[in-house]
Amino acid sequence: MTVNEPAQASAWEPRYARRAKRMAASEIRELLKVVDQPGVLSFAGGIPDPALFPVEEAKAAYAAVLGASSGALQYSVSEGYQPLRHWIAAHMDTLGVRCDAHNIVITCGSQQALEFLGRLLLSPGDTALVTAPTYLGALQAFSGSEPRYDELHPENSNRTPASYADAARSAGGDVKLAYVVPSFANPTGATLSLGARERLLDLAGELDIPIIEDAAYAMLRFAGEPLPSLMALEIARRGGIEHSRVVYCGTFSKVLAPGLRVGWIAGCKALVRRLVLIKQASDLNSATINQMVMHRLAEAAFDAQADRARAHYRRRRDWLLAALQRHMPAGVTWTRPAGGLFAWVTLPKGIDAATLLQRSLREAGVAFVPGGAFFFDGRGHNTLRLSYSLPDEAEIERGIASLARLL
Amino acid sequence: MTVNEPAQASAWEPRYARRAKRMAASEIRELLKVVDQPGVLSFAGGIPDPALFPVEEAKAAYAAVLGASSGALQYSVSEGYQPLRHWIAAHMDTLGVRCDAHNIVITCGSQQALEFLGRLLLSPGDTALVTAPTYLGALQAFSGSEPRYDELHPENSNRTPASYADAARSAGGDVKLAYVVPSFANPTGATLSLGARERLLDLAGELDIPIIEDAAYAMLRFAGEPLPSLMALEIARRGGIEHSRVVYCGTFSKVLAPGLRVGWIAGCKALVRRLVLIKQASDLNSATINQMVMHRLAEAAFDAQADRARAHYRRRRDWLLAALQRHMPAGVTWTRPAGGLFAWVTLPKGIDAATLLQRSLREAGVAFVPGGAFFFDGRGHNTLRLSYSLPDEAEIERGIASLARLL
Repeated sequence: MTVNEPAQASAWEPRYARRAKRMAASEIRELLKVVDQPGVLSFAGGIPDPALFPVEEAKAAYAAVLGASSGALQYSVSEGYQPLRHWIAAHMDTLGVRCDAHNIVITCGSQQALEFLGRLLLSPGDTALVTAPTYLGALQAFSGSEPRYDELHPENSNRTPASYADAARSAGGDVKLAYVVPSFANPTGATLSLGARERLLDLAGELDIPIIEDAAYAMLRFAGEPLPSLMALEIARRGGIEHSRVVYCGTFSKVLAPGLRVGWIAGCKALVRRLVLIKQASDLNSATINQMVMHRLAEAAFDAQADRARAHYRRRRDWLLAALQRHMPAGVTWTRPAGGLFAWVTLPKGIDAATLLQRSLREAGVAFVPGGAFFFDGRGHNTLRLSYSLPDEAEIERGIASLARLL
Repeated sequence: MTVNEPAQASAWEPRYARRAKRMAASEIRELLKVVDQPGVLSFAGGIPDPALFPVEEAKAAYAAVLGASSGALQYSVSEGYQPLRHWIAAHMDTLGVRCDAHNIVITCGSQQALEFLGRLLLSPGDTALVTAPTYLGALQAFSGSEPRYDELHPENSNRTPASYADAARSAGGDVKLAYVVPSFANPTGATLSLGARERLLDLAGELDIPIIEDAAYAMLRFAGEPLPSLMALEIARRGGIEHSRVVYCGTFSKVLAPGLRVGWIAGCKALVRRLVLIKQASDLNSATINQMVMHRLAEAAFDAQADRARAHYRRRRDWLLAALQRHMPAGVTWTRPAGGLFAWVTLPKGIDAATLLQRSLREAGVAFVPGGAFFFDGRGHNTLRLSYSLPDEAEIERGIASLARLL
């Protein structure tokens, strides 16, 4: 993207684009491209393994929806393709969230869901509560609204609700939302305990704020019983989705395929109505044909694909944990994810992961994401994220051995 | 969308969604759904005729890209699919705009282009210059940034640049952009003369503001030589796209198909870099598979489809103009579009088009869009938009005769 660019000043820089600076933090994402070059053994990109994609089913589904009517190529309603919204409502029901299609709006992946919610809920100077580290894309999605961030400690909170509210007010705004990835989080792979989930709901209740539940990896549990979603717990407390402070962001990207860009938000109808207007103003509707195809894929293959993905990523996680165990020197620690695509490594204090990445790329052709990118306040220099979704057993062994040698 | 909804107050309304109110104007778009019901003869929706969609070509293209690699189902770069950006750059070259792929960012239709540009350029209280009437979707896209609007009079301006700047400053902001649909505009069907185009560039130069050129209908000229785009004129003045104040928003929606949601922005590289970061934060990337398919469709069928569309819509425009001529009473006037999908009707003063619509739906089952929706300041009660893209000759005859009878 930045190749071959004339080094000239542009009229756009200072004068027109006064809002552009806040986007600059996003440049860190460029890193993900640099390190995902051919020839590089990458633990960087948090993307699903294309070997799992239902290619034949997708081919059949595109042919079928184009055979049935030309409507697949036409504009469609902003809230999304009705049969897909019905499927999602039924899916949410299996997760303990009773709702109907009017509680669902289709988005271009859950990234768009986060951006819409940030835009709806945050004004400049307001406070968003996030974990540190948290999903980089969420920080980017919210940052266009220029919030202040404050840190959630879901497992061991020493902060009172009042302390959050007071800090927000002295910064000139209010606490407007909390954002969490409760299961198999990006970037840590960590899963919130039931107690932590309940305490988050308590906090949201006392502050009277919405919680954005990012469930991107929720279907990728490797073992054990699933924990209830925040939304399911909130509905149990408050009697129904219409009273839920939790907004649920789901996606087909990790179970079926991300290239169609189909995700959703589940929430109370008053919220969904607002979001549909934002959707309309933002891109009219998500690609009609992809919604119709995703509906067919979900009907035919969601459960089987989720099973395949769980088995596939569990194997890779096992290889990664074994390799870390085998090779890493004392003083290096890591998470043991019960699902999802990521493990999180903490290096001894004083070792800088960004510097390690430079050496690792140069000397071993191995890539990962330095952890600092996932902190809103620039902490975490001695941490890094490893994605095990793409490399095979031999690559994991070689890559982790190389990293360990460099340490 | 608003069906079956409990009439209960929601926590989201007053407290959380303090930004939501500005979206309320968008509710007018709901009208377009109401009037596009089966059984209603509709001149309302500004959508292409699905009879023109390249369904067989699309079927072949989806099969081909899914046959070639599973990459079509994967995430991809935020700036867009490189071969498609190259095709677009070459297409822009045929329109007198020399540029390369680094001047292009792919968006989800040109609606997303407008929303991104509004978000990048406008802060609350800033002024956006628009014609009155103008494209409703642009007002919605910009309104999330809470601008003030001021009116462009491109054909017969009696306003000095200073008068715009002064008005903006006394309203507490600056003039930050001008937005126009120079050719076959939505909603009027009007096309700016060469003189008006040059005067717009003069104005933008004196105010030192960007012009957003919405070229959604530019390929749908029915007769005569195309006028140069604003961007081509600006490049001729200023020596290259890197110095252009004009930003060009293009789309495949009107020539190929809108259901894939593929449009683009062409601009100087500094701007495109900013927009790529906004794209990344907003939805990561437009659907990979649709970009690959659109590239194949554009390569194979763009010119032939544009020819088909021009012939098709010209015929319908002719039917519409003939029917208006035949039936409309004295005192009713209308535009004679040289391209695009719309004609604009002005009723005698005192006749309210919204009231007429209610009667027309009830008594004749005929729909159109009352013109007031397209004015930022609520003028235009005695105007209406007729889209001739969908009804056939007999329907046009019957619909216009019915409207005329009601008048």
